[in-house]
Amino acid sequence: MSIKNSLTMPLPIEKVFRDPVHDYIHIQHKLFLDLIDTKEFQRLRRIKQLGTSQFTFHGAEHSRFSHSLGVYEITRRICDKFVRNFPASEHGESGWDDSERFVALSAALLHDIGHGPYSHTFEEIFETNHEALTVSIILSPETEVHQVLVKVSSDFPEKVASVIQQTYPNPQVVQLISSQIDADRMDYLQRDAYFTGVNYGNFDLTRILRVIRPSKNGIAFQIQGMHAVEDYIVSRYQMYMQVYFHRVSRGMEVTLERLLKRAKELYHEANPPLAVGLLEPFFTETFTLNDYLNLDDGVLTTQFIHWQSHPDPILSDLAKRFLNRRPLKSIMFNSETDQAAIKKLQQLISSAGYNIDYYTAFNNSYDLPYDFYRPNKQGPHKTQIELMYPEGEIVELSEISEVVKSLAGKFSGDERFYVPKEFLEFSEDAELTLFDPLVKEFRNYIKNGTILVVEKKIKRS
Amino acid sequence: MSIKNSLTMPLPIEKVFRDPVHDYIHIQHKLFLDLIDTKEFQRLRRIKQLGTSQFTFHGAEHSRFSHSLGVYEITRRICDKFVRNFPASEHGESGWDDSERFVALSAALLHDIGHGPYSHTFEEIFETNHEALTVSIILSPETEVHQVLVKVSSDFPEKVASVIQQTYPNPQVVQLISSQIDADRMDYLQRDAYFTGVNYGNFDLTRILRVIRPSKNGIAFQIQGMHAVEDYIVSRYQMYMQVYFHRVSRGMEVTLERLLKRAKELYHEANPPLAVGLLEPFFTETFTLNDYLNLDDGVLTTQFIHWQSHPDPILSDLAKRFLNRRPLKSIMFNSETDQAAIKKLQQLISSAGYNIDYYTAFNNSYDLPYDFYRPNKQGPHKTQIELMYPEGEIVELSEISEVVKSLAGKFSGDERFYVPKEFLEFSEDAELTLFDPLVKEFRNYIKNGTILVVEKKIKRS
Amino acid sequence: MSIKNSLTMPLPIEKVFRDPVHDYIHIQHKLFLDLIDTKEFQRLRRIKQLGTSQFTFHGAEHSRFSHSLGVYEITRRICDKFVRNFPASEHGESGWDDSERFVALSAALLHDIGHGPYSHTFEEIFETNHEALTVSIILSPETEVHQVLVKVSSDFPEKVASVIQQTYPNPQVVQLISSQIDADRMDYLQRDAYFTGVNYGNFDLTRILRVIRPSKNGIAFQIQGMHAVEDYIVSRYQMYMQVYFHRVSRGMEVTLERLLKRAKELYHEANPPLAVGLLEPFFTETFTLNDYLNLDDGVLTTQFIHWQSHPDPILSDLAKRFLNRRPLKSIMFNSETDQAAIKKLQQLISSAGYNIDYYTAFNNSYDLPYDFYRPNKQGPHKTQIELMYPEGEIVELSEISEVVKSLAGKFSGDERFYVPKEFLEFSEDAELTLFDPLVKEFRNYIKNGTILVVEKKIKRS
Amino acid sequence: MSIKNSLTMPLPIEKVFRDPVHDYIHIQHKLFLDLIDTKEFQRLRRIKQLGTSQFTFHGAEHSRFSHSLGVYEITRRICDKFVRNFPASEHGESGWDDSERFVALSAALLHDIGHGPYSHTFEEIFETNHEALTVSIILSPETEVHQVLVKVSSDFPEKVASVIQQTYPNPQVVQLISSQIDADRMDYLQRDAYFTGVNYGNFDLTRILRVIRPSKNGIAFQIQGMHAVEDYIVSRYQMYMQVYFHRVSRGMEVTLERLLKRAKELYHEANPPLAVGLLEPFFTETFTLNDYLNLDDGVLTTQFIHWQSHPDPILSDLAKRFLNRRPLKSIMFNSETDQAAIKKLQQLISSAGYNIDYYTAFNNSYDLPYDFYRPNKQGPHKTQIELMYPEGEIVELSEISEVVKSLAGKFSGDERFYVPKEFLEFSEDAELTLFDPLVKEFRNYIKNGTILVVEKKIKRS
Repeated sequence: MSIKNSLTMPLPIEKVFRDPVHDYIHIQHKLFLDLIDTKEFQRLRRIKQLGTSQFTFHGAEHSRFSHSLGVYEITRRICDKFVRNFPASEHGESGWDDSERFVALSAALLHDIGHGPYSHTFEEIFETNHEALTVSIILSPETEVHQVLVKVSSDFPEKVASVIQQTYPNPQVVQLISSQIDADRMDYLQRDAYFTGVNYGNFDLTRILRVIRPSKNGIAFQIQGMHAVEDYIVSRYQMYMQVYFHRVSRGMEVTLERLLKRAKELYHEANPPLAVGLLEPFFTETFTLNDYLNLDDGVLTTQFIHWQSHPDPILSDLAKRFLNRRPLKSIMFNSETDQAAIKKLQQLISSAGYNIDYYTAFNNSYDLPYDFYRPNKQGPHKTQIELMYPEGEIVELSEISEVVKSLAGKFSGDERFYVPKEFLEFSEDAELTLFDPLVKEFRNYIKNGTILVVEKKIKRS
Repeated sequence: MSIKNSLTMPLPIEKVFRDPVHDYIHIQHKLFLDLIDTKEFQRLRRIKQLGTSQFTFHGAEHSRFSHSLGVYEITRRICDKFVRNFPASEHGESGWDDSERFVALSAALLHDIGHGPYSHTFEEIFETNHEALTVSIILSPETEVHQVLVKVSSDFPEKVASVIQQTYPNPQVVQLISSQIDADRMDYLQRDAYFTGVNYGNFDLTRILRVIRPSKNGIAFQIQGMHAVEDYIVSRYQMYMQVYFHRVSRGMEVTLERLLKRAKELYHEANPPLAVGLLEPFFTETFTLNDYLNLDDGVLTTQFIHWQSHPDPILSDLAKRFLNRRPLKSIMFNSETDQAAIKKLQQLISSAGYNIDYYTAFNNSYDLPYDFYRPNKQGPHKTQIELMYPEGEIVELSEISEVVKSLAGKFSGDERFYVPKEFLEFSEDAELTLFDPLVKEFRNYIKNGTILVVEKKIKRS
Repeated sequence: MSIKNSLTMPLPIEKVFRDPVHDYIHIQHKLFLDLIDTKEFQRLRRIKQLGTSQFTFHGAEHSRFSHSLGVYEITRRICDKFVRNFPASEHGESGWDDSERFVALSAALLHDIGHGPYSHTFEEIFETNHEALTVSIILSPETEVHQVLVKVSSDFPEKVASVIQQTYPNPQVVQLISSQIDADRMDYLQRDAYFTGVNYGNFDLTRILRVIRPSKNGIAFQIQGMHAVEDYIVSRYQMYMQVYFHRVSRGMEVTLERLLKRAKELYHEANPPLAVGLLEPFFTETFTLNDYLNLDDGVLTTQFIHWQSHPDPILSDLAKRFLNRRPLKSIMFNSETDQAAIKKLQQLISSAGYNIDYYTAFNNSYDLPYDFYRPNKQGPHKTQIELMYPEGEIVELSEISEVVKSLAGKFSGDERFYVPKEFLEFSEDAELTLFDPLVKEFRNYIKNGTILVVEKKIKRS
Repeated sequence: MSIKNSLTMPLPIEKVFRDPVHDYIHIQHKLFLDLIDTKEFQRLRRIKQLGTSQFTFHGAEHSRFSHSLGVYEITRRICDKFVRNFPASEHGESGWDDSERFVALSAALLHDIGHGPYSHTFEEIFETNHEALTVSIILSPETEVHQVLVKVSSDFPEKVASVIQQTYPNPQVVQLISSQIDADRMDYLQRDAYFTGVNYGNFDLTRILRVIRPSKNGIAFQIQGMHAVEDYIVSRYQMYMQVYFHRVSRGMEVTLERLLKRAKELYHEANPPLAVGLLEPFFTETFTLNDYLNLDDGVLTTQFIHWQSHPDPILSDLAKRFLNRRPLKSIMFNSETDQAAIKKLQQLISSAGYNIDYYTAFNNSYDLPYDFYRPNKQGPHKTQIELMYPEGEIVELSEISEVVKSLAGKFSGDERFYVPKEFLEFSEDAELTLFDPLVKEFRNYIKNGTILVVEKKIKRS
């Protein structure tokens, strides 16, 4: 009991972390200091927030550590607004009960704790799941995170985990952490914009924080803030189009995916088996939580440095391509209409001596692990954004915003076919180029960066 | 010859990299694209610019890659100014010969290519030298960097290396890259300010670029820019005081140093010897350039992850302290007057069961590898900053700036004694603290974060 | 001839103006220095860019002077890009002829020279036209502007004027100054965002400047810049919705309009006639260009200070309301369906003792002097925005952008009915409010800031 | 009593003003809304903050209105910090009594209410005093400001006035508004930097707000903030050197001063007397508070527009020079050693046909109405800046900061002699210049923008 007090009582002196995006992160309770000091949270310093985007936007080298602090800070500011303007004591069910602050802020801080290196690709290859791992880290008695949380109360870890899982009974808390316009997204749009150096992510955060309010069913926005919310949606759309779905980052992603795929084959088939270091439990599918917590970006790249000098030419080549940023290059295509052309192109690449299992790939940006605003789609995340009139009436955002309506319910993104660079790049040193007939024929199928439909192609050639 | 042309002729379409500090990095010649694409340059992505400062300023996760691009860009902008306003054709020896652009920009891009992970500490332990390694990378026929440079002309690598070594005959080129106010410093002050989130580094770069000019002896600044240059000097001083010399970052540095020191001992003495992975050639002092180029931050931390579970309790403990950011803490002292007190404190720490060879350390910020403005001191870097009147007369900066004079020729910084945290931190959970007599006695020697001189101490206790 | 050279030859030393938005405005030819130094251009310092918006956004006190410099600077940067990347010598009709620089930059600098104080309202009351006046200032031999321009060549003033009038033969020049995405709009969006403190206007200018290019029919944007152009359109839409159409600024505008209307009546009817100072030639409709050039914001407000103590109670009251920022307040309505309700409300206001000719007003944001993106509408400004594929094919923006399509061709904005404040504001001092039956009845007609349709209203009351 | 409550009770909904410098100004009590709505406060919109600096930095068009809101906001944030961290209830005399908030914030908002147009020059010519006028406005029963304040309590206006006069008993309140590092200076440095576009004023405000604290004798700063305070002092010094003392702004100031001086003479001597509009009570030295409150920047410039066409050639010429930004130009001199040279130069100017009483002027930046850090000088403003150790010991800033010590107690600035432009500017059109012997001789006395001492001059000629 006295322990609990020491964790959740206000610190006599507020502690701050200097943050380039939010100026200061304010820590006002020992609970959060202790969570930040755990080894599981510190590990997030060694995992980059944007994975392969750093290869397109060289400034984007920030970690999940700084993002997690940012989500905490935005949630904290919202709690402060809520308790000042809409306390449950006055607003009942539409108000905010400030005793929820601790579970909300803990979930904010820990929501990405289960992420590993290059999550998207890693999860695909090794069938891990960062959300399930987040929950495990919170619930496992062996973790330092759990040991801090359980000091608050014996059911506190469960509560925090249930916010992540979106089963926590108070929808306000759940939506602060996971909804179309939550603290997570608000931080990453601004942070990723800051570090990449683009300004598409710069929606008006202070205005959003002025108009956000608790409601009976979760969170809502005062009607006068409609354009600020609209602007946030457009910012998000722009960040997806211009940053998260960038073709070169995806090129690095498919290169990584091909590399790990090759490693997996060699591990099981080569003799002697491929050395894989700290990754071994993942190749053997016997990993423990502790094995997982030993992983970070550096563990992967260290392995790749070893593999660079491995005798398998494909493994070493792909390792070098990833380490030295020599991604596969891409053209757009339509998976429904362009199958014949794709087949032909694969043959050409194969004829040029490439193993197309490792040197070509398909990638579409739809199945990237980001959810864009699609209120019609089913799924737990897809709460709609609601605006509230002074009298309390609610209206859904896309009903009153033409701009949001134009974006809602539509898939954005594209499908791309990745191939070795020489098939697509025109060299400036004409005399050095091996401009052989295969490449020449290949290029007959391409126009404006897109595979030509067959009819057009025939006419052209 | 035709090859040379293709490298140094203007690209038909300028290529840009989005940069959060300079907006865009403009690449206008294939030479620089090719240098950036080398594996040695790409490796800089995996080495953080500020080493352990990231543990104090969590935003400071940027790499030497982005800094190197920034130095290139500032140099490029200066070359553009020089050739427009002060071409050698009109200004003779005081003017700029634009054929120097290629050697200047190559040196700008490559000036940090020899850096390794946590250079300061690494170099101390393993006796490497990043400047010598930079020269080696430029001159060794085996590197991709050399292979690109030599295509310009057979003596081009030598020229670029001589700029780094400050022996290149044209002092303008040398001073652009290495002087009290060079493109290197201009970039890192702004970049480190941007990523840490402090604004001390924000001097007026565009104004500096307005007033910089070539002179017979190197570079100078037009007199009307005096206050902008003065402001740059103060910015730099502030960044050293507030960021580079931060006591916590230095605490992580001494922790790292103790860890590597322990590893070195175990490697040579333990049986079986300690596994050290890609670091082996450094433990055996047999490393090649290629071994060095295999190193990066991740290689070190991956090794530390392995060492965390090593049976040696000191090694595993120090590895965890570094990985989980649990640095030694410090008090200020005066190495000339406080030797007796230090001895006493070491005894107390030793009595508490700590091996003081690994759990205490001295660190002064004077011998950090940063040179502050000290025009009186000898050394190749210490060119003075010169201002030029319209009629051509030259005056040295500190002669006309009281502010700079107050900073010049004085050592800034402090000496610190690092000890385990519990000797210095007052716990908020009074009832949980092992407030034992050793700690209590220790604290009698401390006031205002400084070791008391013995007389005072006695009076107090 | 020698004079011409001195105006259009590069200045030996570039001159700069420090600008908070573009950092520096670079003046490279004496022609532009001389234009800036004319009394007609200096007068723009005394005319605020955003008129009554300053009463909503207190930072928006910037003048048309700084905006005009900004338009010049953006145009200059575009010319530099054009001549470097797309010179007519290589690209023919699709390229840029840099001899057009002088006419383009002169038009950029002078495009707003004919603006007067609070243009929108002033033009409505006194039937002036700032575009026609701009042309007059350029063409009249008596102005300093003309005297500078004519030194370039005898037909140079005509050429500059024809760019403003959009009759200049080179469509590239015309579209740089007047099109849906011209230097004028690019500057004002960024500048108004900077000074108001909102960030909706922060589209990615440097990216736009990367992708803009000359084309045969004017200007176009390279296809890879589609999202940047899309973002600009959304920025513009947001600035209109959130800043330019703000109801309080419009409230000040209708207050000003009512004030000048009353003054006009008194001038013609009162005995002795109203003293109107430098405005006299406008009341008598006999003004000369010189009379017009004597006007500025201060001339108007000085007159209002005099009128504050005029015996006519309406004139003095409206003057005080404008000077002391006490605007009429508003509700939304629909001019097609709410005529009956409006009538009733006017009766109530009249019954309360207000002259509804001066104390009520209608205002819709559609007829504000800003054109939003409406490609279907006829008119000289409505050139569409075109994107160009590498092979030269052109596509219109809204064809490939869902977001732009959602905004194109639709009227945005609203209709508002302005009334004295006490009919709409709920006082916090309940006991002080004259909450009389008229006000109470008035409020029965209002909900959510909008006039209720009559059926609803009846049900409610 | 009930009225008082309504003014000082928290507003149910906080009201905000968007501010480009502080993001939002938060108004939490009706008292401050009512003060802002007074006609005396609204008048500040029509008075520029920086007077003639706008003619050097065209962005600096912001008003005393926005600055006054900024000072309020910084004071409000400090009160919030004080009451959270150092309440009087816990810290006694070294703590903050939050009932002082109302008097502190009222004084913050009103501290510049007595300013008039181009105060410095106006006060010199017409012998007004903005501080005395501020007190009058607060105390006169006729002003709206007074009428609002007196509703709080009958002695409240007196209290607020005494803070301005620095006689209020609580030194914390006095120093928040007037000291070497008060809310006034903190706002204007940042605001003036923002609007001019220079970045010298960008000290670390959030850090200062972290370390500021109440003390028994006023305000102090926690020792760990030393470098942030030091940086603020340097920022201030830089702003004075680079912005406030700019020679061109001072050239406009002396031009204005000469113009008003001439008007004064003509008013008293000409027949018919000069028409001076709303300025009349100041020419006759019979002005009332109300006359003063009718003045603003526009009233002055409107008068100048009239004077432009006055038959007196000196008056009309000086009016045009001011309106059209054609200031006198300057050279540096030393009033102690250069009297002989000055005499000679005046003779030359006189011989060229200029009346030196109106076309030359002396100006030194020492007597500009800005106090720089001079702790040794006597005067009520010159409280020193104090830093506090955790144990409570106090140290004065310049004792521990070399940089501040270098600036303290020294006069910065220069003395300048202003003359007609043609004596100093070298025309680029050599053939057009009337390079007559007078000008030629004049220039023999000048070198590096400074008057040569006589010996040198003789040798040279």
